[in-house]
Amino acid sequence: MHDDCWVVLYGKAYDLTKFAKVHPGGAKLITDAAGMDATAIFDPIHPKDIMDKLLKPALTMGVVDTTTIKPEHVCKPPEAHKPAPKKKKAVKADDGAEEEEEFKKPPLAAMLNSFDFESVAREVMEPQAWGYYSSGGDDEITLRDNHLAFQRITMRPRILVNVREIDMTTKILGVPASLPLYFTATALAKLAHQEGELAIVKAAKKAGVPYMLPTLSSYTLDEMLAARTPDQVVFSQLYVNPERSRSEEYVAKLEQAGVQALFVTVDAPQLGRREKDMRNKFTQQGSDVQGDDEDEGAVDRSQGATRAISSYIDPGLNWEDVPWLKSITKMKVLLKGVQCAEDAVMAYKSGLAGCVLSNHGGRQLDTCRPGIEVLPEVMEAVRAEGATKENFAVFIDGGVRRGGDVFKAVALGAQAVGVGRPVLYSLASYGQNGIVRMVHMLQDELQMVMRLAGTPNIPSITEKHVITTNLADHIVPLPIDNLTHKTYQGLEPAARL
Amino acid sequence: MHDDCWVVLYGKAYDLTKFAKVHPGGAKLITDAAGMDATAIFDPIHPKDIMDKLLKPALTMGVVDTTTIKPEHVCKPPEAHKPAPKKKKAVKADDGAEEEEEFKKPPLAAMLNSFDFESVAREVMEPQAWGYYSSGGDDEITLRDNHLAFQRITMRPRILVNVREIDMTTKILGVPASLPLYFTATALAKLAHQEGELAIVKAAKKAGVPYMLPTLSSYTLDEMLAARTPDQVVFSQLYVNPERSRSEEYVAKLEQAGVQALFVTVDAPQLGRREKDMRNKFTQQGSDVQGDDEDEGAVDRSQGATRAISSYIDPGLNWEDVPWLKSITKMKVLLKGVQCAEDAVMAYKSGLAGCVLSNHGGRQLDTCRPGIEVLPEVMEAVRAEGATKENFAVFIDGGVRRGGDVFKAVALGAQAVGVGRPVLYSLASYGQNGIVRMVHMLQDELQMVMRLAGTPNIPSITEKHVITTNLADHIVPLPIDNLTHKTYQGLEPAARL
Amino acid sequence: MHDDCWVVLYGKAYDLTKFAKVHPGGAKLITDAAGMDATAIFDPIHPKDIMDKLLKPALTMGVVDTTTIKPEHVCKPPEAHKPAPKKKKAVKADDGAEEEEEFKKPPLAAMLNSFDFESVAREVMEPQAWGYYSSGGDDEITLRDNHLAFQRITMRPRILVNVREIDMTTKILGVPASLPLYFTATALAKLAHQEGELAIVKAAKKAGVPYMLPTLSSYTLDEMLAARTPDQVVFSQLYVNPERSRSEEYVAKLEQAGVQALFVTVDAPQLGRREKDMRNKFTQQGSDVQGDDEDEGAVDRSQGATRAISSYIDPGLNWEDVPWLKSITKMKVLLKGVQCAEDAVMAYKSGLAGCVLSNHGGRQLDTCRPGIEVLPEVMEAVRAEGATKENFAVFIDGGVRRGGDVFKAVALGAQAVGVGRPVLYSLASYGQNGIVRMVHMLQDELQMVMRLAGTPNIPSITEKHVITTNLADHIVPLPIDNLTHKTYQGLEPAARL
Amino acid sequence: MHDDCWVVLYGKAYDLTKFAKVHPGGAKLITDAAGMDATAIFDPIHPKDIMDKLLKPALTMGVVDTTTIKPEHVCKPPEAHKPAPKKKKAVKADDGAEEEEEFKKPPLAAMLNSFDFESVAREVMEPQAWGYYSSGGDDEITLRDNHLAFQRITMRPRILVNVREIDMTTKILGVPASLPLYFTATALAKLAHQEGELAIVKAAKKAGVPYMLPTLSSYTLDEMLAARTPDQVVFSQLYVNPERSRSEEYVAKLEQAGVQALFVTVDAPQLGRREKDMRNKFTQQGSDVQGDDEDEGAVDRSQGATRAISSYIDPGLNWEDVPWLKSITKMKVLLKGVQCAEDAVMAYKSGLAGCVLSNHGGRQLDTCRPGIEVLPEVMEAVRAEGATKENFAVFIDGGVRRGGDVFKAVALGAQAVGVGRPVLYSLASYGQNGIVRMVHMLQDELQMVMRLAGTPNIPSITEKHVITTNLADHIVPLPIDNLTHKTYQGLEPAARL
Repeated sequence: MHDDCWVVLYGKAYDLTKFAKVHPGGAKLITDAAGMDATAIFDPIHPKDIMDKLLKPALTMGVVDTTTIKPEHVCKPPEAHKPAPKKKKAVKADDGAEEEEEFKKPPLAAMLNSFDFESVAREVMEPQAWGYYSSGGDDEITLRDNHLAFQRITMRPRILVNVREIDMTTKILGVPASLPLYFTATALAKLAHQEGELAIVKAAKKAGVPYMLPTLSSYTLDEMLAARTPDQVVFSQLYVNPERSRSEEYVAKLEQAGVQALFVTVDAPQLGRREKDMRNKFTQQGSDVQGDDEDEGAVDRSQGATRAISSYIDPGLNWEDVPWLKSITKMKVLLKGVQCAEDAVMAYKSGLAGCVLSNHGGRQLDTCRPGIEVLPEVMEAVRAEGATKENFAVFIDGGVRRGGDVFKAVALGAQAVGVGRPVLYSLASYGQNGIVRMVHMLQDELQMVMRLAGTPNIPSITEKHVITTNLADHIVPLPIDNLTHKTYQGLEPAARL
Repeated sequence: MHDDCWVVLYGKAYDLTKFAKVHPGGAKLITDAAGMDATAIFDPIHPKDIMDKLLKPALTMGVVDTTTIKPEHVCKPPEAHKPAPKKKKAVKADDGAEEEEEFKKPPLAAMLNSFDFESVAREVMEPQAWGYYSSGGDDEITLRDNHLAFQRITMRPRILVNVREIDMTTKILGVPASLPLYFTATALAKLAHQEGELAIVKAAKKAGVPYMLPTLSSYTLDEMLAARTPDQVVFSQLYVNPERSRSEEYVAKLEQAGVQALFVTVDAPQLGRREKDMRNKFTQQGSDVQGDDEDEGAVDRSQGATRAISSYIDPGLNWEDVPWLKSITKMKVLLKGVQCAEDAVMAYKSGLAGCVLSNHGGRQLDTCRPGIEVLPEVMEAVRAEGATKENFAVFIDGGVRRGGDVFKAVALGAQAVGVGRPVLYSLASYGQNGIVRMVHMLQDELQMVMRLAGTPNIPSITEKHVITTNLADHIVPLPIDNLTHKTYQGLEPAARL
Repeated sequence: MHDDCWVVLYGKAYDLTKFAKVHPGGAKLITDAAGMDATAIFDPIHPKDIMDKLLKPALTMGVVDTTTIKPEHVCKPPEAHKPAPKKKKAVKADDGAEEEEEFKKPPLAAMLNSFDFESVAREVMEPQAWGYYSSGGDDEITLRDNHLAFQRITMRPRILVNVREIDMTTKILGVPASLPLYFTATALAKLAHQEGELAIVKAAKKAGVPYMLPTLSSYTLDEMLAARTPDQVVFSQLYVNPERSRSEEYVAKLEQAGVQALFVTVDAPQLGRREKDMRNKFTQQGSDVQGDDEDEGAVDRSQGATRAISSYIDPGLNWEDVPWLKSITKMKVLLKGVQCAEDAVMAYKSGLAGCVLSNHGGRQLDTCRPGIEVLPEVMEAVRAEGATKENFAVFIDGGVRRGGDVFKAVALGAQAVGVGRPVLYSLASYGQNGIVRMVHMLQDELQMVMRLAGTPNIPSITEKHVITTNLADHIVPLPIDNLTHKTYQGLEPAARL
Repeated sequence: MHDDCWVVLYGKAYDLTKFAKVHPGGAKLITDAAGMDATAIFDPIHPKDIMDKLLKPALTMGVVDTTTIKPEHVCKPPEAHKPAPKKKKAVKADDGAEEEEEFKKPPLAAMLNSFDFESVAREVMEPQAWGYYSSGGDDEITLRDNHLAFQRITMRPRILVNVREIDMTTKILGVPASLPLYFTATALAKLAHQEGELAIVKAAKKAGVPYMLPTLSSYTLDEMLAARTPDQVVFSQLYVNPERSRSEEYVAKLEQAGVQALFVTVDAPQLGRREKDMRNKFTQQGSDVQGDDEDEGAVDRSQGATRAISSYIDPGLNWEDVPWLKSITKMKVLLKGVQCAEDAVMAYKSGLAGCVLSNHGGRQLDTCRPGIEVLPEVMEAVRAEGATKENFAVFIDGGVRRGGDVFKAVALGAQAVGVGRPVLYSLASYGQNGIVRMVHMLQDELQMVMRLAGTPNIPSITEKHVITTNLADHIVPLPIDNLTHKTYQGLEPAARL
């Protein structure tokens, strides 16, 4: 049916037949535009250069004279980004009854922590965009465990330390930062806000932290770079392309623009199965499923998907490619997505500048460990090999939501932590200012934690300030005992009788 | 009252007086048909040959000339398998209110994982059939723990491995399979779908996995065997009959038909107490209880039941019978239902071909361990005795619902895993195609897990890819503290205020 | 106000001024009857001889000629034991809506396990009686933990054992029993059913288990003894009276009547604070509190209570009294309420016949250990001192609700288990027949467990059949993370969308 | 806008421009009174001398002739403390339906435990006052964990000990007390009740326990001291002022008044972020936020706050100040807020009289350990250094709600426990009598626990009476498995069907 799917974008025709199947936004968005000029619906989400980044040159079919396209073959732009329709929300009234009222966005000053932004983002975002950002792999156990892991670490504060002045500034890969935190790369920021990555670049500057530019951005690399202030330092994330020359070009451009470090993503040789997102797409875009036939062989089906995906992320990347990676740039090269000591040691021995312990925000492999949990194992192993803070930087990301989380990561040896979703949620709810305030809240929290822990500056934070006895405890309680539970009559405090 | 219960089936008269008491479908279904030709209501669920398999010859009372039976003594067939009546369902509307709407079966393509099929099956199945399949022993703690156990295993993925091609094919007892998974034996598939086991046989072929034919099937053995394609290999499960000659005949038939392996069930010398199912029957079939008398001695009561059950499953089967088992066939003989190292070692030393670590889907003994939890103990013990993958195959079943579960079992040494309820639920909801798609989803998941774990093929999956520290933790949290809990005012994120 | 509280019972006048304060049924019931003949309201709950058992002789003020009492000074009997008013109950209808309907007691045959009786008892019992039976000490953590502890023990079944015949009969202190279980002493059975302890005596006979007669019964000792069949063996519980001669008389009567063993309660030198019960009384009997004055000294207040209680249970009882206890009877003497190894060893060394590991059904000290959890520690210690099954019997009670619980206790070394509330709940809901059926259900369960565990008789059940790794884990999960939890959008299976 | 904020109080003008930003009650209450005589709204909450205690002399701008102030520049007093408006409350009716009814305060005699007072306080307190008292730091995990930690300790009672007489009296820092408990310092008791700290002083006398006078009280120090009976001994808490002379004056006054011990707070160099309280203020006082600008640098913002706070609590206080502290008084000096062994040893070696293991009621640093959990580590460490009960007293506070909690703290080595919120909640709900009854309930509970544990007096309570195996287990269960959970059909007891 959709055997042949050509689409015109910015005056070029592309063969998206295979790509449609692996479009993270769902095939329908593409197949509906087959044979048409889709520029108007493509532009609000994607950067102009994404086709050149992702698609094989062979699939670019040549230039089209757009003046010759009939109006009925030109997609109309989506309605202007209108304010989200007021939603209804269940509210627990004082008298315990459920009431309904319109959702009224609180003022920015009411945001007291990073969770607040998430709760507002859930209300104001388009459901599809919310689904794309908030979903995780499979049962989302790792997604949720990422933050919970920090609660498995207990604080061990010291008293009677002079904490009049708290200094949380630090250097991240040599770059000064207002606290040990950076904005990690996340895809398609326009789904959150029209200003997308440009707002993040500016907010990073105001907040005084580095931003790791994503490969799969909504704005082009040039646009993102141009949004910097002259003195602003950024990092960049990299998906290695199966056609290495493309990655080489991209890296050269980064280096030329003064980007300081390159984080190569190694935990995504295939995109994770994010079912909440998959369901959203199914429900909202409808489906062209022709009955209930499941006859095709499973292997062919999935191999097809793999082949398409591997057109822009190389699943064959392996340790033998590391020398090539190091050879193409003078930037510091780090691995993003390490999950055990052995691989961290390999990275160190391979002469890389560091690694990020990460499970990709719980979006890839479910039931794996949070970065913070992997950290002690990695620090012990790389130190045993001679690694120091100077020659091998270890970062973590995933689940950082409190200043105390930053503290715990630093205590266990991380040079800094990456935050992703909190940036997107604060961007979605309040734009650039939202991001800045989100960082301010983390700073307020971290300042308090440092003061109350008796650690006036970053170097003073040590392993002795935390207890990790329970960090690796993945406890799944036995199922509840229904028969007992349903007859038992609970105690009630006096005011409830 | 029902002291004497004769029933005519396919022109033969049977004395079902004792059998009625242990009929898994409830006594009433049989006693209501006393003195009648019940063929019409028997046929939709049971295979024609079940009486010969289960009943002692002495209870077959001879041939009846069915033309002489008066119409009022002939049971009417149940109404044709009409589509399940549209059910109402509580739906959380966007505004938080509860609404009611008719259940509309989603298209097959909306099934993203094995849980989806279960949720649809619950809606479309007859309550009695759902109760029979979904229930477990006693408090159903083991039933639910079976899947939870997999969550007590944490993934330890490796990076920078070439995972361009993922090969999950393997051999199960020498039989090629598209992944390390087989369909385990489950009783009475017609309760799920009119095509019953025949659909499972066909789906197994399409999905490329072996099917273990059940003894207590809805179709006859001949019918199941006939549903195979010429090159399709199947296994068979066996309940050993107290009259060994019957089992010998049955096994001979299997061997002659080319069945490759015989799995002898050893965890069901008595049927488990499945209370959800018992209640269903009580509620829906009514009861002929005459008041509240409980005078009869308990021992007599239960011994009666035992005697009746033992008419077709021998509770006296023991290790001394193993040489006989091995003597009657050239098929590989395995034990299904092993739950500790000692018994696995005994099986190995007895020269058997392997064993299945299983608790019978949580339907027998409650609060025992899931197969996946027993696996490390068994692998260590049998390997210490010299067992290898070649001479002793270890399988597990119970709770497998995700491709990651298959991965974890393989990592810990299983040759493959058995799935039971997912087959029944996908059969019940979408027939043969449902089963195939269910396997496809598991394959998609397993492919992703293998790619993200850095294990491109089955042999590359090892113990080092998983963490089992918490696998044996059966944690029952202390009861909640009601007084504290009921006065505490929880935090609310900003959007909820 | 109630400084002087005399009450006439069966023609004798008693000074209940002090006793009223410690009346387990609440002071108001007594003070309301001050100066009156209260026989009519006393008789339905209490035995005729309780005053002689509990009250100091000095407080019996002499005989009253009841013919001289004016009618207005004679309490009226409570209304005849009318069937409990039909109650309303919330019911989850098929469509998810809450409905209300009258509670209809299910037939006895619908009772499938001991929990069922409890659920029916909650509906049919008077709220005060339910409150008295079902309540526990303080936060009721131990009350609920008692049963949960059994779930912290995992089964380790063996296969291929000949389990055609299961024999669960055993001897308890030399007395034959149909299973390793006895009915433990519980107070005031008339609160459950008019036939009270007499029904329990008869049910014990029918069920083939010993009954431990309670000191604080609703029927007199003579009445309970008379309810026995000629060959029926019973045990007896004893609260030691501060006036030792009273206990000596009571014990002599027991011995003369052929009672076989004496269980001396040692865990109740003071009655526990059962707040659910206290609230019930407060709410339902009203209160004569004069404002909010709390001026009296706490010490005086509680010492008063203690003094009154100690009028019939001696809080001074200690190890030096054991020789006296042994000297006054030839019955076997055991301690009921031991909670650690040291005390069990003391009991053994003191020449006692055994002990019951018990926390008094969770009604006394909260956050202490269930009997089943104390068992391994005790067995190891007494065996190290030379104790054997023959010369020192160890029992447990508390939380036994399943046949599997009995199995686990036996596996860990208990000679038998005591059940209390299940007897009261089955008595309350269905009378004597209810108790018998409750035992039958436990027998059915135990038979199944023994058959599935590969243990055809009681001696074959060993420590190797269970896993106790988690038995002593008292896990209190950290409080839930409200901010995270309240914004997270859970996954929904397909049929729920 | 509020750049210049002068306020007149008791005839003096103060420059509160900077202070407003750190006013624990919120800036708006102060800025609304800018340029006015605010005495009338200040007086009901604060002591007259607080300005002298907290504010730098330079900010006292001189005396104002109040007769010259125009009426429109004089704040009106808040309405007289009217009884709280009857609130509505959700009530679970017998038939399961939700009903609404007016909250009716139960009589004092219905208060059976400390939780009851909290539940009543929640209903009768002004929401802001409730928010201020009940809130904790960040996610309130430590706030809630404080009480839960006691449930991680299991009782190990002994039997057959003569417990006729229970003596729970003890000495706290040499001062006789009716039980091992004192009222710890809490701020601003007038928020609970008009009589504030005066009622607490009187209740402490009646209850026979010492009270630790707070620095941040609602009544002046003189007023609190005057409320004592002639023989009543009190302690005092101290926030060390950055201007040491102020603290010296304050301490001298305490010593002169016969105060026996000085507890220097060391866990609050900065006030914790109590978000529930912050939200309350935001919601109820409105906000003057001008749009969503978050432009100002975070560092400046928070440093500003710190500077203001540090005007009355010195964040620079450190171990080198200890000799000074000891030099200015002959009172015993202790540290309040120690959280690990190292600091307790430092305190002991510094010649201090003891310390309080405390996390400030969970109001400061979140995810740190409860005092009771730190206790074993501290006792072992200080004893190893030679500390004895006589020369170094260790206390704990936080989460004490039951007599059993007191028992457990004493068993693990605490000389006594401090209670804070229970005092405020019982004060708020029933005034002075409420506090006394709250202590009576704890005494009743402790008496019962001591009697049932076989420990007739305080010295007989030892480590062997408790089990602490799980005390340090901070278990965070893995997130619930939604897909499994939402399709599973739970068992229902018979009465629920």
